[in-house]
Amino acid sequence: MTESSAVKKTAIRRATIKDVPYILGFIKELAEYEHEPDKVLCTEEMLEKTIFGSVSYAKVLIAQTEEGIPAGFALYFYNYSTWNGKPGIYLEDLYVQPKYRGSSYGSALLYALAQELVDIDGGRLEWSVLKWNTPSIEFYKRLGAVPMDEWQTMRVDGTQIAEMAKRSPGILE
Amino acid sequence: MTESSAVKKTAIRRATIKDVPYILGFIKELAEYEHEPDKVLCTEEMLEKTIFGSVSYAKVLIAQTEEGIPAGFALYFYNYSTWNGKPGIYLEDLYVQPKYRGSSYGSALLYALAQELVDIDGGRLEWSVLKWNTPSIEFYKRLGAVPMDEWQTMRVDGTQIAEMAKRSPGILE
Repeated sequence: MTESSAVKKTAIRRATIKDVPYILGFIKELAEYEHEPDKVLCTEEMLEKTIFGSVSYAKVLIAQTEEGIPAGFALYFYNYSTWNGKPGIYLEDLYVQPKYRGSSYGSALLYALAQELVDIDGGRLEWSVLKWNTPSIEFYKRLGAVPMDEWQTMRVDGTQIAEMAKRSPGILE
Repeated sequence: MTESSAVKKTAIRRATIKDVPYILGFIKELAEYEHEPDKVLCTEEMLEKTIFGSVSYAKVLIAQTEEGIPAGFALYFYNYSTWNGKPGIYLEDLYVQPKYRGSSYGSALLYALAQELVDIDGGRLEWSVLKWNTPSIEFYKRLGAVPMDEWQTMRVDGTQIAEMAKRSPGILE
């Protein structure tokens, strides 16, 4: 099967709250693949509240088989570039179940995100990958992705956030 | 002046469309500091449309002096962690004009973001820094930030996005 015929058969659709059990399953399987299964604190209730609740912090695309079975997903949100003066898309999670790999579901999800990026007049599609995950990095490079080697991501979380928040001078509206 | 008394005098407020000239000025000054002045394609019109228009892709805090003069800014958006099942804050740009440095405007902006993170029940505050910018990295580490050394950010932009979008199987709503 050529890639183009596989892509044509791949259906990409927006997730609904009914997909939450599948989404959490994919999140957990991806964390296992990343050797970090214990890092997943997320629950179905948290996904329902933060993605399908009154405020939605992320968007989800589902790749499904011809029979309508979810095979993988892309979870993403809009970011912003001050250099471009435009939004972009940050892909937080991309995952296709092992039994469905090799049928271009992953590529189809990335292509659909590129389409959405064009639709919002956005500039960049970005994501992060574990440095040891060379098969994924090679796959992404073949798609035209470039590693942002000059930049270092920094993070503050946990109790340090509460310590910092205590020192806030407040935000005037 | 101790840091805490400086922070008390610092006013942090949300930006309005009237701040667009200041915001674009800060973006350009930051790009010069980053040795990339030619990368700024952003215009006042683009900021008005993408941040203060009908859809807003980013938020902006202004740090101002006691006299009400904008001294610096933080431009950010909400991201999402599937491990946490929670939103977070991604700080795209943090900048304080050289003449106002040393008075804790930068810290006050970060503390205000930590406060907002607590307000939205978020998990992480993240940003990127150029690897050669060791003074900033040391400043961030003193605040409790940790470098995400294991992860590599990937990016697709430019004509490659259009090429990928052409191959999209479409998104079913």
